[in-house]
Amino acid sequence: MLVVAQDDPLRIIIIGAHPDDCEGNGGTAALWVEMGHKVKFVSVTNGDAGHQDIGGGALARIRHAEAMEAGKILGVEYEILDNHDAELMPTLENRKQIIRLIREWNADVVISHRPNDYHPDHRYTGILVQDAAYLVIVPNIVPDCPPLKKNPVFLYAQDHFQKPNPFSPDIVVGIDEVIDKKIESFAAHESQVFEWIPWTYGGLDDVPEGREARMEMLKAQYQPRITPQIREALIRWYGQVAGSKIKYAEAFEICEFGSYPDEEDILRLFPMIKK
Amino acid sequence: MLVVAQDDPLRIIIIGAHPDDCEGNGGTAALWVEMGHKVKFVSVTNGDAGHQDIGGGALARIRHAEAMEAGKILGVEYEILDNHDAELMPTLENRKQIIRLIREWNADVVISHRPNDYHPDHRYTGILVQDAAYLVIVPNIVPDCPPLKKNPVFLYAQDHFQKPNPFSPDIVVGIDEVIDKKIESFAAHESQVFEWIPWTYGGLDDVPEGREARMEMLKAQYQPRITPQIREALIRWYGQVAGSKIKYAEAFEICEFGSYPDEEDILRLFPMIKK
Amino acid sequence: MLVVAQDDPLRIIIIGAHPDDCEGNGGTAALWVEMGHKVKFVSVTNGDAGHQDIGGGALARIRHAEAMEAGKILGVEYEILDNHDAELMPTLENRKQIIRLIREWNADVVISHRPNDYHPDHRYTGILVQDAAYLVIVPNIVPDCPPLKKNPVFLYAQDHFQKPNPFSPDIVVGIDEVIDKKIESFAAHESQVFEWIPWTYGGLDDVPEGREARMEMLKAQYQPRITPQIREALIRWYGQVAGSKIKYAEAFEICEFGSYPDEEDILRLFPMIKK
Amino acid sequence: MLVVAQDDPLRIIIIGAHPDDCEGNGGTAALWVEMGHKVKFVSVTNGDAGHQDIGGGALARIRHAEAMEAGKILGVEYEILDNHDAELMPTLENRKQIIRLIREWNADVVISHRPNDYHPDHRYTGILVQDAAYLVIVPNIVPDCPPLKKNPVFLYAQDHFQKPNPFSPDIVVGIDEVIDKKIESFAAHESQVFEWIPWTYGGLDDVPEGREARMEMLKAQYQPRITPQIREALIRWYGQVAGSKIKYAEAFEICEFGSYPDEEDILRLFPMIKK
Amino acid sequence: MLVVAQDDPLRIIIIGAHPDDCEGNGGTAALWVEMGHKVKFVSVTNGDAGHQDIGGGALARIRHAEAMEAGKILGVEYEILDNHDAELMPTLENRKQIIRLIREWNADVVISHRPNDYHPDHRYTGILVQDAAYLVIVPNIVPDCPPLKKNPVFLYAQDHFQKPNPFSPDIVVGIDEVIDKKIESFAAHESQVFEWIPWTYGGLDDVPEGREARMEMLKAQYQPRITPQIREALIRWYGQVAGSKIKYAEAFEICEFGSYPDEEDILRLFPMIKK
Amino acid sequence: MLVVAQDDPLRIIIIGAHPDDCEGNGGTAALWVEMGHKVKFVSVTNGDAGHQDIGGGALARIRHAEAMEAGKILGVEYEILDNHDAELMPTLENRKQIIRLIREWNADVVISHRPNDYHPDHRYTGILVQDAAYLVIVPNIVPDCPPLKKNPVFLYAQDHFQKPNPFSPDIVVGIDEVIDKKIESFAAHESQVFEWIPWTYGGLDDVPEGREARMEMLKAQYQPRITPQIREALIRWYGQVAGSKIKYAEAFEICEFGSYPDEEDILRLFPMIKK
Repeated sequence: MLVVAQDDPLRIIIIGAHPDDCEGNGGTAALWVEMGHKVKFVSVTNGDAGHQDIGGGALARIRHAEAMEAGKILGVEYEILDNHDAELMPTLENRKQIIRLIREWNADVVISHRPNDYHPDHRYTGILVQDAAYLVIVPNIVPDCPPLKKNPVFLYAQDHFQKPNPFSPDIVVGIDEVIDKKIESFAAHESQVFEWIPWTYGGLDDVPEGREARMEMLKAQYQPRITPQIREALIRWYGQVAGSKIKYAEAFEICEFGSYPDEEDILRLFPMIKK
Repeated sequence: MLVVAQDDPLRIIIIGAHPDDCEGNGGTAALWVEMGHKVKFVSVTNGDAGHQDIGGGALARIRHAEAMEAGKILGVEYEILDNHDAELMPTLENRKQIIRLIREWNADVVISHRPNDYHPDHRYTGILVQDAAYLVIVPNIVPDCPPLKKNPVFLYAQDHFQKPNPFSPDIVVGIDEVIDKKIESFAAHESQVFEWIPWTYGGLDDVPEGREARMEMLKAQYQPRITPQIREALIRWYGQVAGSKIKYAEAFEICEFGSYPDEEDILRLFPMIKK
Repeated sequence: MLVVAQDDPLRIIIIGAHPDDCEGNGGTAALWVEMGHKVKFVSVTNGDAGHQDIGGGALARIRHAEAMEAGKILGVEYEILDNHDAELMPTLENRKQIIRLIREWNADVVISHRPNDYHPDHRYTGILVQDAAYLVIVPNIVPDCPPLKKNPVFLYAQDHFQKPNPFSPDIVVGIDEVIDKKIESFAAHESQVFEWIPWTYGGLDDVPEGREARMEMLKAQYQPRITPQIREALIRWYGQVAGSKIKYAEAFEICEFGSYPDEEDILRLFPMIKK
Repeated sequence: MLVVAQDDPLRIIIIGAHPDDCEGNGGTAALWVEMGHKVKFVSVTNGDAGHQDIGGGALARIRHAEAMEAGKILGVEYEILDNHDAELMPTLENRKQIIRLIREWNADVVISHRPNDYHPDHRYTGILVQDAAYLVIVPNIVPDCPPLKKNPVFLYAQDHFQKPNPFSPDIVVGIDEVIDKKIESFAAHESQVFEWIPWTYGGLDDVPEGREARMEMLKAQYQPRITPQIREALIRWYGQVAGSKIKYAEAFEICEFGSYPDEEDILRLFPMIKK
Repeated sequence: MLVVAQDDPLRIIIIGAHPDDCEGNGGTAALWVEMGHKVKFVSVTNGDAGHQDIGGGALARIRHAEAMEAGKILGVEYEILDNHDAELMPTLENRKQIIRLIREWNADVVISHRPNDYHPDHRYTGILVQDAAYLVIVPNIVPDCPPLKKNPVFLYAQDHFQKPNPFSPDIVVGIDEVIDKKIESFAAHESQVFEWIPWTYGGLDDVPEGREARMEMLKAQYQPRITPQIREALIRWYGQVAGSKIKYAEAFEICEFGSYPDEEDILRLFPMIKK
Repeated sequence: MLVVAQDDPLRIIIIGAHPDDCEGNGGTAALWVEMGHKVKFVSVTNGDAGHQDIGGGALARIRHAEAMEAGKILGVEYEILDNHDAELMPTLENRKQIIRLIREWNADVVISHRPNDYHPDHRYTGILVQDAAYLVIVPNIVPDCPPLKKNPVFLYAQDHFQKPNPFSPDIVVGIDEVIDKKIESFAAHESQVFEWIPWTYGGLDDVPEGREARMEMLKAQYQPRITPQIREALIRWYGQVAGSKIKYAEAFEICEFGSYPDEEDILRLFPMIKK
């Protein structure tokens, strides 16, 4: 059983490119929330392009509603910025918006994409968040919004890209107890997970109808397999016994541009990890 | 009866902000086409925003099809540039695209919006076309596309705005014989004239169903009334008798940044005007 | 005595370039507020440049505090956008921010600068607000923020520039009963009206010390004289007797890109005008 | 005979779009220089596009050499900014460069294009200079370059465009005594006046060979005729007798965004005008 | 002897920064063409800067003609985009142009630069092509141009840069039988290979005159040596015997953002590789 | 004792993001200067954001004065570009400014940040300098400024970041004899090293008062420790005996986009290294 935070809840902000990207960290998010900590999801684009039949503002409004639903399932706050999907650029305006969000959330931890990922919006989201690191403590930037007292820990969410350097699972979290909640949060993004994404790989006809079948489909697709490196990291963080048994996990790489946490910091920031 | 051009057809390019903007000059366009001249319509944006229910690429594809239909009715070529509706900016890239289009059409006459009109896309379309004037003859700009030998005549299409200076009807064309064709070209823009625009003024419920009633509705809405200045100009160009009888007209103001036509030039470029 | 709005208060948003620009309409704003209507001031830049000794975020924070004080005096809400002073550009990002603000305020009336004014920030603020007109009713623009049901009335605040066309006092409001409040709102911008602006004309040494003397100084400087055109307009709106006696007035020009109000509309929107 | 300035020479900066644009004010410039005042010409673009055969850096270097020669003839300093010809945009970077130049020259008078002129580079040069007005006195803009103590007088050079408002000859200068020098300064722009510009109007074959014939050709082309308004202004400034005899003149319109000169100021700033 | 494609030719698009960059893959291109497949070269800039004496549009036109000649030699289509050489930026406009080109070519394979290469135009071309990967299948992006049914295989052309990670020769093609054709395609870029590039290393005087000598010079310069890694890859793909004998080769690295080909895919896409 | 350059002094330009960044290479700079070589420091931003109390132009002017003082201590020229601190973007304008500076300094060696460093301004400075490499020899870029005859050696200054690849100490310089001068140059940046930077880590109260104590504090903080890799490199360059004794060192990584120096080149360019 998780020990619930008495006071001083941790504050985590997860910044993804599209509605449904933050959900890749939905297990860890759910664990934080269950322990009484505060998690916010931000989608830097409004998702107004990724669909075969609908688009623009009409699609953005659907995506907005789906995200709100997903947020409710996980117990996180959800905000969507009004940037066109597939057209995100690392502008100064966007950087400042990110700085403001991190500050207003008073974040201890910031999680985003690595700048090497398959979608340009992911890459530029990663760059925007990197570019906000450190500046969140500089009072003269976004001067009407008080700076953070301390640069947060910035983390990259897991991906499988190898160039120019592979993802490093510095921190891993077992999420077996919340895997269903995570999958449900994905399912809330109906227009994506049951319409658009299957369309992209020609699988639209194979999307099952019933809720249960759909959950199974998502569980199979949306949970990355535990690679040997992840298993090794699980054992490192959870011990041989517990670490070997975990079936679902999420991993994070430490970004060098934020505060660099030592093991003690990590265990404080990830209280769901119990060695 | 109109005398048909034997050779050397005139080449006119009309550059509007949205699919359906060029059609405001559809009467004159139809007359040119009937006389054997060549007319091209360009919409600088793809019209992907102006609708209450649909948007983005999904809407742009509808708008594209409607424009092709309108072009067929009037006998003009139609091209739509891939710029977001309601987000047009007077960039260098857009300017160069306009220069290329004017050159490739080998235009004698270019018609666009004045830079003072109610929609920002209209204003910036007007600026982009102004900014192409003169540069269309400079070989080192858009160097892979041969420059025009002569700066075309640039004209502004009629509007009713007064500031900073009112529209001046330097040239007027009576379009009674093609008014139905013009209205039909508007009707082709179904998602605009029967859906979006009525929605904007709360008139969606009043849009009639039958084709004939719809044509009447459009004829009432889409043909600007003949102001005293326009009547005066009609009489100046068509003579007292003919000019007094014309029921439908389109007017044009000469832009000072293109070639400045004298009366003879105008009568050559507007052969449908018969004094 | 002013009749207080029972229900359905009017909602006015005034959008200036710098903290202290909206205050030029502070008399009319105060009258609206006193009658129970809702007024919001927006400064599109953060005022971080206009001072001889201080600058950047440090200055922006001072300006923010002064604006909050001025807003309290007039009874208006005040918001300052985080754009550098003297560097405002008419970008799409800024346009969308303006659209959002107008919508969120559910504005009946929008007031801003004309695009011909001495400071580039004023001109580009005027352009940004013009570019928001009409788009505030288009649902696919800023799609997460419900569009207005009706394009508001857009007005230009008074200025004295003549080119390319002079300001036209279409609407005038006598503000004698609130002139002191207006002047106090200017006085709240201490770092501007008693430091920076006197410095710009070499008058820093002549700024008096006492509060009363300072108020006199401001009253002399900050209230534009009643030109013959303004007097004529006052008489037109207030009648010969009342219109001739008014000592302080504010004037507005109707922008052609918003809803065009007729006299009845104006009297409804400016209920302080009592013929 | 002109009275030579004893001390405190006036400092004038003329900012044109292309090498050869400032020369349109070359008569007045020459008169200032002859009286001991300091004049600087700035071309905001490097002229790297306007030629039928040459282009890019190769052309820019020719244009640079020609401008230096023209400057020598008139006795003015000449600087060319490295912006592409025909691609000038009113960016913040360019605005700051203009501010710096005006300050470093410690200008009393700044002359540029009106923002309504046939070439987009002229229009955007006009806008950039307008946008520098006032900001030249703000210390926090371009902070490493001391601000001017006083906003200079900003003037527009003569043009013949009518919309949105015609050029107003607020100040006129008779330049009969320096007309040859002015024409010679144009002649220094050989690649323009004898190659490119004749090419644009199909007159390349008619360019004469000998120096004298070429000077005659330029004198005919490059000196705008004295319109009735200019003649009227000449008589106003020079008196009936002298004003009626002047054969060559240059006119200037006062920009409202700089210091507004009264008659005394004008006579001080234009000491070559002797009523 | 190569087996010629019967039907369904492969469609390859190679996107380089400058006219002559695609030619680095000219051997493989020639082999594809000889087997009946379709290859298109795109130069993202117009090459208007890289010359010691000529520049701008004048140079761009020379570069255009040379590229057309090179395309003819190799049997490929050639298109040059109108972007300034040495000024390429990874803008959204350029990204969309790349997406359109890849779609219109209906590409199976896309080849470009890695984003770490010596020339900024190479790096930004690499980024633009990466940013097009995946988006080529999204219908709402560039909506008037039908999306590809499948994300193509994206490849990086060989380079020798080590940071942040060295080029990985995932695929190699022996080009001995077309090496002369490849060298001739380089030779077509006369203003580059015999003028500009020798000038950059001080070798202009050493450029021989006769055609044969020039071909030798190019063969020596333009064909990268077979590094041990390339040799190893050749043996892997062609077998020990054939792979050891190949004298000229071109190598490709698989980009992780496109479809990831397995060995069978590679042998289908590179039918000239015969194990 | 150092041998002083007789003639042909080396010319080094060090390009940092902020006033005080170049100083990280201040030891090597001082050694070059003492040997008669010419060193210039450039700060690409004006440092107008990094302070807790002051900002904007007011701060930029303080930073400018501090940099001039630091330059005097080290004997280097110092230039500060007018870009906002914390807002640097890799624009074409900035790239051209860097090209011009490198050319005007006629640089043999250019030193800047790697594009992976904690502050976005550092990263974008690194990118801008990379983007200038090679283009400094292209005459048609920045055409009014003669190109360098040879691409300089571009070096990255030492940092401790590991992703995507760690800093490689290709060249190391022992700076024991000038360590005090280096520390004094840091001390000149009073508003940074004794005010802003201590504030960022909560150490403002611990900044000592006396000059000596402050120098000790800086020596402890500002001189990176000699890592095993640096020690190894020192021994490689200085020999076992001398290399083992050096207490303070600065290291440089060779950028692949400039001229690639061999050992002889390095010893010529770094004459203070005496094996």
